[in-house]
Amino acid sequence: MRTPLCDAFGIEYPIFAFTPSEHVAAAVSRAGGLGVLGCVRFNDAEELDRVLTWMDENTDGKPYGVDVVMPMKIPTEGTSTDLSTYIPEEHKKFVDETLLKLGVPPLPEGEGREGVLGWLHSMARSHVDVALQHRPVLIANALGTPPNDVIEECHAAGLKVAALAGAPKHAQSHVSNGVDIIIAQGYEAGGHTGEIASMVLTPDIVDAVGPNVPVLGAGGIGSGRQIAASLGLGAQGVWTGSIWLGTEEYRNLASNQGWETAFLRATSSDTVRTRIYTGKPARLLKTKWTEAWAEDGAPAPLPMPLQNLLVADAHNRINASGDPDVISMPIGQIVGRMNEVRPVAEVMADLVAEFEETVKKLNQVAGL
Amino acid sequence: MRTPLCDAFGIEYPIFAFTPSEHVAAAVSRAGGLGVLGCVRFNDAEELDRVLTWMDENTDGKPYGVDVVMPMKIPTEGTSTDLSTYIPEEHKKFVDETLLKLGVPPLPEGEGREGVLGWLHSMARSHVDVALQHRPVLIANALGTPPNDVIEECHAAGLKVAALAGAPKHAQSHVSNGVDIIIAQGYEAGGHTGEIASMVLTPDIVDAVGPNVPVLGAGGIGSGRQIAASLGLGAQGVWTGSIWLGTEEYRNLASNQGWETAFLRATSSDTVRTRIYTGKPARLLKTKWTEAWAEDGAPAPLPMPLQNLLVADAHNRINASGDPDVISMPIGQIVGRMNEVRPVAEVMADLVAEFEETVKKLNQVAGL
Repeated sequence: MRTPLCDAFGIEYPIFAFTPSEHVAAAVSRAGGLGVLGCVRFNDAEELDRVLTWMDENTDGKPYGVDVVMPMKIPTEGTSTDLSTYIPEEHKKFVDETLLKLGVPPLPEGEGREGVLGWLHSMARSHVDVALQHRPVLIANALGTPPNDVIEECHAAGLKVAALAGAPKHAQSHVSNGVDIIIAQGYEAGGHTGEIASMVLTPDIVDAVGPNVPVLGAGGIGSGRQIAASLGLGAQGVWTGSIWLGTEEYRNLASNQGWETAFLRATSSDTVRTRIYTGKPARLLKTKWTEAWAEDGAPAPLPMPLQNLLVADAHNRINASGDPDVISMPIGQIVGRMNEVRPVAEVMADLVAEFEETVKKLNQVAGL
Repeated sequence: MRTPLCDAFGIEYPIFAFTPSEHVAAAVSRAGGLGVLGCVRFNDAEELDRVLTWMDENTDGKPYGVDVVMPMKIPTEGTSTDLSTYIPEEHKKFVDETLLKLGVPPLPEGEGREGVLGWLHSMARSHVDVALQHRPVLIANALGTPPNDVIEECHAAGLKVAALAGAPKHAQSHVSNGVDIIIAQGYEAGGHTGEIASMVLTPDIVDAVGPNVPVLGAGGIGSGRQIAASLGLGAQGVWTGSIWLGTEEYRNLASNQGWETAFLRATSSDTVRTRIYTGKPARLLKTKWTEAWAEDGAPAPLPMPLQNLLVADAHNRINASGDPDVISMPIGQIVGRMNEVRPVAEVMADLVAEFEETVKKLNQVAGL
């Protein structure tokens, strides 16, 4: 499995793996793909610095990437304390009552932390600054076109810049602002996602940006058949996320067994696209927590970044409780295919083998 | 492009084309695919009989199929006059006021017809009876598993039975009730559709029903790349619909230019999945009509078959007016790729050529 992106990045397979875990990212890079570390969980730039140092030392010299969450325009922001004054009491009350109803205990004394500040522009910018002191080959932005000066800074340092797009016009806008690689994020993807499904979105974006801009297919990809489909649609590589939560390496980050129990039993029908996680539509595992927000009388989610601050403590409590019926977890429809926990290297080997097998089958159909 | 379905049906390409137009269906069959005539628009069994006689005479002896809309269980039903007593005044008032606001004129004196009775069980059953007096090779049901006696009757007459499924469990249920072929209808499809996108749904259903049950990929398929993707995902053929609205042959059925104007300019972002057409979620072109139903204060759509009866006259008026901003039109996300009107044979030739080109490109990627 070889496309021009392999040469551009010095990787063996055009399989890009977004993950919040440095253990998963490093294992993917070592296995021939490109591990991309999600930075949004790092409220502390020094912690990210330490983790990227670990990445530098544990990737056998193989390339890796980082993923930040940076709006192009600087929004109103402040500390979480400032921002929380904008959160209506009705919303706080709903969250408290829902947690009580779902039996989610408070955090143990002394635990708990701030909301995820990675959603703030200033924090994302510090992530870029730290990353540039290490050796990533790619910076991806999950929230549209990065600011122009960030793109220039990355290019000057020899990095490629990628950005997610959920519609062809967004992809064209990214390219005209200097983004190198488009991640076509289909409706079926976990996390932030638009309404156009991969089968339609990938070729639409490929045609919209033209042959000189590589496109990664994202959303619904967790098998070699799906990689073949995505590359058949014109992608030069795939951007995967959810499937890496089902790996042994991810257990270093997951705080308890609730997550595994939840996704191992879930089918492709068990996700929902909702604004409750960040204020923008994102696909999550369907649980009692997401269902509570869909009931009559539940408040409408707040805009980004307020919604994240509103639910941050709740998510800490939910995840600490480890109740798989309640868990709050961004994940794609591919979760239905995640039925066992395996080492990253084994998952990679299967993706590659099934891709080749699929192309052979297509040859028979085509009579080639 | 050849799979076992080609031999099973005596067709050249495993491309199934659902269409309400006998002209399109016949042209697809003549071009080597399988044209499947949608019967729901026929309120009069004799009219269907005449049309199928025309099909028998205009398909050069090639096979064709029919598509009915038949619930497995017989619901409460009656004439449209009986049923309309169940429709709340609030709903009728909303429809009237919305048409006034959107500037949709009444039908000319003497025109107008009943709601589409094809949604009623008794009418669908008469469609099957009529079809069995002709020579279709396939009966597809758009509303789940057909009744057992209908399946047996079709099998006795040598026909295969296909049914749409939007989730693996529905596909398994179809198969255990004797359905021969599953149409995996992805989220991106026009008309009735579920929430799982084709990239995930197709392989999930292929794996759920096993290797002995052929699966057709449906939803988002309007190019040879998308056919390659769908077959790569494990489908043995594709079920297409929307793209055939953009053919010269379809002009025999379309009453005015409004439709063409509407879909030629639409992008893949310009559809919406809503219950306003039949009471069940179906994807339509996004127009001022669908937007009106999404506004605050609009009533919730009624259950099937009441919603169809509620809006039937409105749809007749809207379609007669030909205003492309208001039109009511089931269509998939593939509408973004429908940018010119061409003859069916040309569309077919392009699908086949692009499929082969795509497989050759995948061979290069795989190093085969």
